Amino acid sequence: MHKKKAHSRKSEKGTPGLRGRLWIDGAAGTFLGYGRIILLERIREYGSISKAAWSMKMSYRHAWEVVDSINGQAPKPLVETATGGRGGGGARLTDEGEKAIALFWELYRDFQKYLERRQKKSLQLWR
Amino acid sequence: MHKKKAHSRKSEKGTPGLRGRLWIDGAAGTFLGYGRIILLERIREYGSISKAAWSMKMSYRHAWEVVDSINGQAPKPLVETATGGRGGGGARLTDEGEKAIALFWELYRDFQKYLERRQKKSLQLWR
Repeated sequence: MHKKKAHSRKSEKGTPGLRGRLWIDGAAGTFLGYGRIILLERIREYGSISKAAWSMKMSYRHAWEVVDSINGQAPKPLVETATGGRGGGGARLTDEGEKAIALFWELYRDFQKYLERRQKKSLQLWR
Repeated sequence: MHKKKAHSRKSEKGTPGLRGRLWIDGAAGTFLGYGRIILLERIREYGSISKAAWSMKMSYRHAWEVVDSINGQAPKPLVETATGGRGGGGARLTDEGEKAIALFWELYRDFQKYLERRQKKSLQLWR
């Protein structure tokens, strides 16, 4: 799945067309965006924030800051860390975390469709 | 007009909600996006790439590179420079340039409406 995503992003470069980025802001700035959702999915996959960070070539410290930012802006935490906290223990997604991932991909897919529709409608000019 | 835009961007920060960015890619990467459209509008306003760059705190060199990138990816140039080239002369938008600006703002407004619609539909979860 990760390879497929990396590929689909890469293949977009150099292809003329309408492009966009979508994210959800919270009270303190970015709450959820593409990169943050991938981090959440990796936490689900690895059961650990440090392993998730490592898999994305993200620093452990940055991953923790992102998780703190996500949890701090959500009504209920999206990631739960086991006793041991930063030192040990694991991490898992809450039901809210699962819902957030599903919602984001739903928004993302709808947005891709929107971009395709708008492109057909508006960019004949440069075709 | 510039003040109004700066304000509307600023006021969005810290307001929870769905956010997005939109741009048009050409064969060599970004063709037109928010910043490039502002640069084109400033070229129209000042009749000069260097003055337009200065008004945006952009380097002269970068502004020229952006204009080259835009013109190089468009079927017909969007910016025309008078004899004198980089050294002197002025710059003006072509009809294609005017059309591109109008198209971009049309896309931009439609996109803002899309974001509002999607936000109402999908983000009740965090309201």
